[in-house]
Amino acid sequence: METRKIIKPGERVDDLQARGYQIIQNPSNFCFGMDAVLLADFVTGKKNAKAMDLCAGNGIVSFLMKARDKAKSYAALEIQEESVDMAKRSVELNGLEESINIIHGDLREVSDLFAPASFDIVTANPPYIAGQSGLENDLSPKNVARHEICCTLGDVVKAAGYLLKEGGTFAMVHKPFRIAEIMRELSANRLEPKRLCMVEPKTGKEPNMVLIEASKGGGVFCKVEPTLTVYKENGEYTEELLMRYNCEK
Amino acid sequence: METRKIIKPGERVDDLQARGYQIIQNPSNFCFGMDAVLLADFVTGKKNAKAMDLCAGNGIVSFLMKARDKAKSYAALEIQEESVDMAKRSVELNGLEESINIIHGDLREVSDLFAPASFDIVTANPPYIAGQSGLENDLSPKNVARHEICCTLGDVVKAAGYLLKEGGTFAMVHKPFRIAEIMRELSANRLEPKRLCMVEPKTGKEPNMVLIEASKGGGVFCKVEPTLTVYKENGEYTEELLMRYNCEK
Repeated sequence: METRKIIKPGERVDDLQARGYQIIQNPSNFCFGMDAVLLADFVTGKKNAKAMDLCAGNGIVSFLMKARDKAKSYAALEIQEESVDMAKRSVELNGLEESINIIHGDLREVSDLFAPASFDIVTANPPYIAGQSGLENDLSPKNVARHEICCTLGDVVKAAGYLLKEGGTFAMVHKPFRIAEIMRELSANRLEPKRLCMVEPKTGKEPNMVLIEASKGGGVFCKVEPTLTVYKENGEYTEELLMRYNCEK
Repeated sequence: METRKIIKPGERVDDLQARGYQIIQNPSNFCFGMDAVLLADFVTGKKNAKAMDLCAGNGIVSFLMKARDKAKSYAALEIQEESVDMAKRSVELNGLEESINIIHGDLREVSDLFAPASFDIVTANPPYIAGQSGLENDLSPKNVARHEICCTLGDVVKAAGYLLKEGGTFAMVHKPFRIAEIMRELSANRLEPKRLCMVEPKTGKEPNMVLIEASKGGGVFCKVEPTLTVYKENGEYTEELLMRYNCEK
């Protein structure tokens, strides 16, 4: 399909540097960041798995997971109609209709949309900022993606717990300062943390992202992986970071 | 007091490189390690605070905290008689009878020993290894210090929750692989994680210690501090590590 026919005003098409996949984004709304890439790379894949991405936005995590063969099929749930529309056109643009299924819906009503325990992998790159004070009148796509306006951390983890099969995998990227809340919500939904990775911008700096993976009904033992450093002292990306961007490894 | 009169066969006296303090240790039982130093340095001090160290062993954490003026008075609770005896002699050796009070007792019976909410700071460097399978017949001081024979993680955190005043501080050093359990036990005892620091042996290696501080009844926000690296590539200690050993800073 010809690209210029599939994009709308204000949108652009970005090359994912992964199997030639492209994604439609609207820079004035929200563009995907490093967090989405790290999440898609971090999550443990499983052959024949049914994967579900929550707070899917323009579907980026599903495309990045598909490029890494993390599962067999990919569902992506998003509440914002504009993002859903964009994600569906990206699926079409890449000819991935057989693999990626974009669904418009509210994760707080996940039990009306899906059967319980119907997925093997659930991922989420949810809004990081708790509360919505002062934002009542600005429900722009950017704010909805960043602030807990349409769902809280608790809503996201609860939905993951509902959707996952016993032994299934939940992976999330979030802000380190919410680590205690994350652990509490996981426990409350029988999602046992199994892997954790702090991401620091530079050596010796405070981590500004945390990647966490949990197993539904899993036993207690959480492997804390080496802290991932994003930049070298000279401002270049580290080898470890670049490796995570590489789908061919 | 003359040192050679105060030590028993098999024991030695080590200089803490801190205000001239010395500690009696028995190398065939257990000697303090970097974890005790990092804990004593990590915990947030408070003028006029009453501090309690649980799983105190030979009292090392109290001496290291005293050297850093972390509190006004220090209590140290230890279950093993031999360690209690050693700790008491170290107090005497340093002339710290007015500051450090060594108590022989079981933290599982803390409510028989102390009034609730009677301390401002509680610290713990507890046994790291869950369970005691195969150890039933070897309750040596070394094993009791390393394995959860006399108390579990849950027992330690519960005792801290009982002892602390509202708003009081609990600090613990533990193994990263138990992070999820630690968070659960803290939450169950209304101890809200406020600071967390991973300790890695070298840059890019898996963290092998975690320092965590919680506030009784505190609000949600956990500051994850920069990962602390112990050794440089050349095997020397890093500046950050040496700084934590320095009491005069």
